[in-house]
Amino acid sequence: MQHVVVIGAGFGGLNAAKALAGSGVRVTVVDANNYHLFQPLLYQVAIAGLDDDNIAYPTRAILRRLPAVRFRLGRVERIDPVARRVTLADGAALDYDRLVLCAGAVTNTFGVPGADTNAFGLKHLHDADAVRQHLLRRFEAAAAEAAAGRDIGTAELSVAIVGGGPTGVELAGGMQELLSRVLRRDYPELPVQGATVTLVEATDRVLGTFAPSLSDHALRTLRRRSVQIELSASVARIDPGAVVLADGRRIEAGAIVWAAGVKAAPLAAASGLALGRGGRIVVDERLRVPEHPEISVVGDIAATPDGKGGVLPQVAQVAIQGGRYTGRAIAAEVAGRAAPPFRYRDKGSMATIGRRAAVSEFPFGLRLRGSIGWVAWLGLHLLYLIGFRNRLNVLVNWAWNYLTYDHGSRLLSGEPPA
Amino acid sequence: MQHVVVIGAGFGGLNAAKALAGSGVRVTVVDANNYHLFQPLLYQVAIAGLDDDNIAYPTRAILRRLPAVRFRLGRVERIDPVARRVTLADGAALDYDRLVLCAGAVTNTFGVPGADTNAFGLKHLHDADAVRQHLLRRFEAAAAEAAAGRDIGTAELSVAIVGGGPTGVELAGGMQELLSRVLRRDYPELPVQGATVTLVEATDRVLGTFAPSLSDHALRTLRRRSVQIELSASVARIDPGAVVLADGRRIEAGAIVWAAGVKAAPLAAASGLALGRGGRIVVDERLRVPEHPEISVVGDIAATPDGKGGVLPQVAQVAIQGGRYTGRAIAAEVAGRAAPPFRYRDKGSMATIGRRAAVSEFPFGLRLRGSIGWVAWLGLHLLYLIGFRNRLNVLVNWAWNYLTYDHGSRLLSGEPPA
Repeated sequence: MQHVVVIGAGFGGLNAAKALAGSGVRVTVVDANNYHLFQPLLYQVAIAGLDDDNIAYPTRAILRRLPAVRFRLGRVERIDPVARRVTLADGAALDYDRLVLCAGAVTNTFGVPGADTNAFGLKHLHDADAVRQHLLRRFEAAAAEAAAGRDIGTAELSVAIVGGGPTGVELAGGMQELLSRVLRRDYPELPVQGATVTLVEATDRVLGTFAPSLSDHALRTLRRRSVQIELSASVARIDPGAVVLADGRRIEAGAIVWAAGVKAAPLAAASGLALGRGGRIVVDERLRVPEHPEISVVGDIAATPDGKGGVLPQVAQVAIQGGRYTGRAIAAEVAGRAAPPFRYRDKGSMATIGRRAAVSEFPFGLRLRGSIGWVAWLGLHLLYLIGFRNRLNVLVNWAWNYLTYDHGSRLLSGEPPA
Repeated sequence: MQHVVVIGAGFGGLNAAKALAGSGVRVTVVDANNYHLFQPLLYQVAIAGLDDDNIAYPTRAILRRLPAVRFRLGRVERIDPVARRVTLADGAALDYDRLVLCAGAVTNTFGVPGADTNAFGLKHLHDADAVRQHLLRRFEAAAAEAAAGRDIGTAELSVAIVGGGPTGVELAGGMQELLSRVLRRDYPELPVQGATVTLVEATDRVLGTFAPSLSDHALRTLRRRSVQIELSASVARIDPGAVVLADGRRIEAGAIVWAAGVKAAPLAAASGLALGRGGRIVVDERLRVPEHPEISVVGDIAATPDGKGGVLPQVAQVAIQGGRYTGRAIAAEVAGRAAPPFRYRDKGSMATIGRRAAVSEFPFGLRLRGSIGWVAWLGLHLLYLIGFRNRLNVLVNWAWNYLTYDHGSRLLSGEPPA
């Protein structure tokens, strides 16, 4: 029986494993975490709107229904395409007949000085936890100083976000609500009403991949909700507590989030396979590595051809459809049938701007915005969340937030300050 | 305006602060964590039945409705009853006119060798997280070794619990369900069906504070559910991976939890106030320190007189009623009225043994057990959970667990293994 190793339990890996289950191959899914993460809602954890386990689900609980699929917790360190073997950080080796590589993407700071050390990324669960913990600890420290008689400035209670794509826009809208609706009430001893959320974008509009009319709508909505937006603003460096623009201006903030881009996971470069733009692995129209057709590459780590000479964007739908396609293609080949080339179906894109405001863009020119866009966004995200229990819990959290303007997931973990 | 400092945001501290709000005093609540913890459900976090934020709620969200009540995040290190000042670990000092001390209890290992280092306590949120993380990491490590061809013994998948009080009984019943209903399905590569849960109790019955008939019922229910119970078993020491009994027997287990007792928080000894049994601070019938009537002591850290020459047990109801009494007594005195002595009303006690099984003991001899006891337990715990949102979420989690035998809160956090 052929052994298929799937690297990554994200959208790509899980969909590949599901399509492969029961097709006459043995499957091992390897991931460095024991959960599947619903990345599109990561920003909600950062703004204390949802808790970790609302957007993460145990991978074994998903895979256990699938025959001949096993899980292995571990970080893949090396791929040897000649020996057909992957090596994990704990020293174990897995031999494969076919490899499905879906290791995803990591934050790309584009070499901006200080971005790695003085700003938080927002790509993993621990990133989102770190943003929330940092912000709340800053507020507690400021409250202690206020109680001791020190004047607290508004800059240290402010938030700066670099990158006006969907993640930056969603985070900016959510942070503004967290400040104005929750933290302002929680910290009456602090001048929270003077704190700001600033969104810094290098181009001349936010949500650059959307239609200009939706970009305009998002911009106006955010500004109406008091988010400061700097367009055409190039970031020179990130200092501790300040984003420094190319024109010399400093945007001071107690918490800085870098949401300006992603690049392929480091495993792409470590694999020795040919790389395209953004360090993504080059694949053919069947999502396979040309020199190694037994290796398929799916999702954010792949430079997936769009059929028009370009590559598809690094979004969830490309990973979902690519994973499902790859699983089916391998199953077909194992059964002696040829697989057709991968064909991507654009299902549209969405971004939420805050309570009752979102923009949605669907095929055939259908565009939604405002409350209707938000309801569409909410419904689709709930549908895609893996695990019925999570769907219910997320709904409860959201309903509660909606009714009370509260964000309940504000627990500080770890050792208390000494 | 008098300044009342309340140390601890547990049941005692919060109820004191609520009763004091708006009574003409200024109140500062100090706690080392930014959340109130619903301790009776801590074992549910250890068995992955509930997640942290289901049983913890931000203290500021509770206090912000109360006039003239402020919160301070910090660990109290010293109390100076003469200067009327508390000093925090971060160096700040708070001067008080009246002090309400409700710092709670910590795990008591009674000096048993190895209990501190080779077993987990179950008193704080990080204890419960640690138990869950440890158990899941053990299972993942065993799965990796099984995949590499090593034979896995059942001992390393087993759980041992020391202490047959309510915490030990609830944890034992829940762990057995986690093993037999969830982990057995999640880890088909491991011999989970051979893994055991062993409960070790020094006396001749479990739930020693309950009526003997309820102890018997709990014992029989646990045994019918395959929990191993060692009665009249004295623990000589805890080795890494084994509980060693006084008669020389070794109970081997991959995870060991010490639930055999609590003692007053270290702040009791550091306060220099007179201590009674279990290191608890001696108080009069108005819950005040005789030499320092401006200091009230409430809950687990106090040796609260029961009016019959003994002291009340370290349970939630004593802290809740003591906190409320103390807040009202201080408010009365500030208004120039004398407060009556504290009178404790026994509302009964309960312990759950697992799905659809619990024992409840109420005043006037009313005793419930089995399914009816469980429904009573569930209802009362939901009622007491602070925060409507949590009540809903806990209900969703429970309903889901009940319908599916699943335990969803199984995320491993922190850095993945290298």
